[in-house]
Amino acid sequence: MDEFMQAAIVEAKKGMDEGGVPIGSVLVHRGRIIGRGHNQRQQRGSVVLHAEMDALENAGRQRAAVYRESVLYTTLSPCPMCSGAIVLYGIPHVVIGENRTFMGDEVHLRSRGVKLEVRDDPTCRSLMETFISEHPDLWHEDIGE
Amino acid sequence: MDEFMQAAIVEAKKGMDEGGVPIGSVLVHRGRIIGRGHNQRQQRGSVVLHAEMDALENAGRQRAAVYRESVLYTTLSPCPMCSGAIVLYGIPHVVIGENRTFMGDEVHLRSRGVKLEVRDDPTCRSLMETFISEHPDLWHEDIGE
Repeated sequence: MDEFMQAAIVEAKKGMDEGGVPIGSVLVHRGRIIGRGHNQRQQRGSVVLHAEMDALENAGRQRAAVYRESVLYTTLSPCPMCSGAIVLYGIPHVVIGENRTFMGDEVHLRSRGVKLEVRDDPTCRSLMETFISEHPDLWHEDIGE
Repeated sequence: MDEFMQAAIVEAKKGMDEGGVPIGSVLVHRGRIIGRGHNQRQQRGSVVLHAEMDALENAGRQRAAVYRESVLYTTLSPCPMCSGAIVLYGIPHVVIGENRTFMGDEVHLRSRGVKLEVRDDPTCRSLMETFISEHPDLWHEDIGE
């Protein structure tokens, strides 16, 4: 597995160890991680800091040109909110750990010209399967259900 | 003007007074404001806390049923990120101050069944026109350009 998906999984596991939703993400600019994050619903009571949003937030304010040369790695298929953030900032390429436990707004992303790579990674899947079976209420809250 | 758009404008003016992007929003559940917010790019260095996101964040964790009975008021047409958050949480109705200075992802929102009301409010427009002419760099950064 490449080092960036591995770094996103490290973030997901941090989230799990904190009792939160185990989804992680990193933003990579020209081969260097500029933001890392994981879902902060349980930890910080946040309804906007999904993993991808947390990685973007932790990357700080960036010029448009930086986003347009970046790749976003995420352990789970991006929900409509995170997909919207990807479209807003013009991130051209997203690498997704898996989309079997949750299918995000991949149709919307592709329609806006975003390149998606889905890895179908067993570690990413296993993290979500365990979490969803143990904390279904928290999971449904996180995806607005 | 109704009290909720007025409350969103109060938030936008707070943002302006703080030297930030003058966009405000309130989330209204069954006729009561449960979250208020304004853009926090300049104030908190946030790339995710647009006004609508700040209002959602300040409303705190809510059950899905609450979002589905809520109306989001915003002084400006919602960008792709904020539109995605509206879709994620299933907010059925959005009242927009204006969409002449910036057209957000209204096509996407309508395609997902969200009811939009555009007020074309002169105060909302004036706040943005002044801001864009005085701080074009900050504005372009905020919309990923």
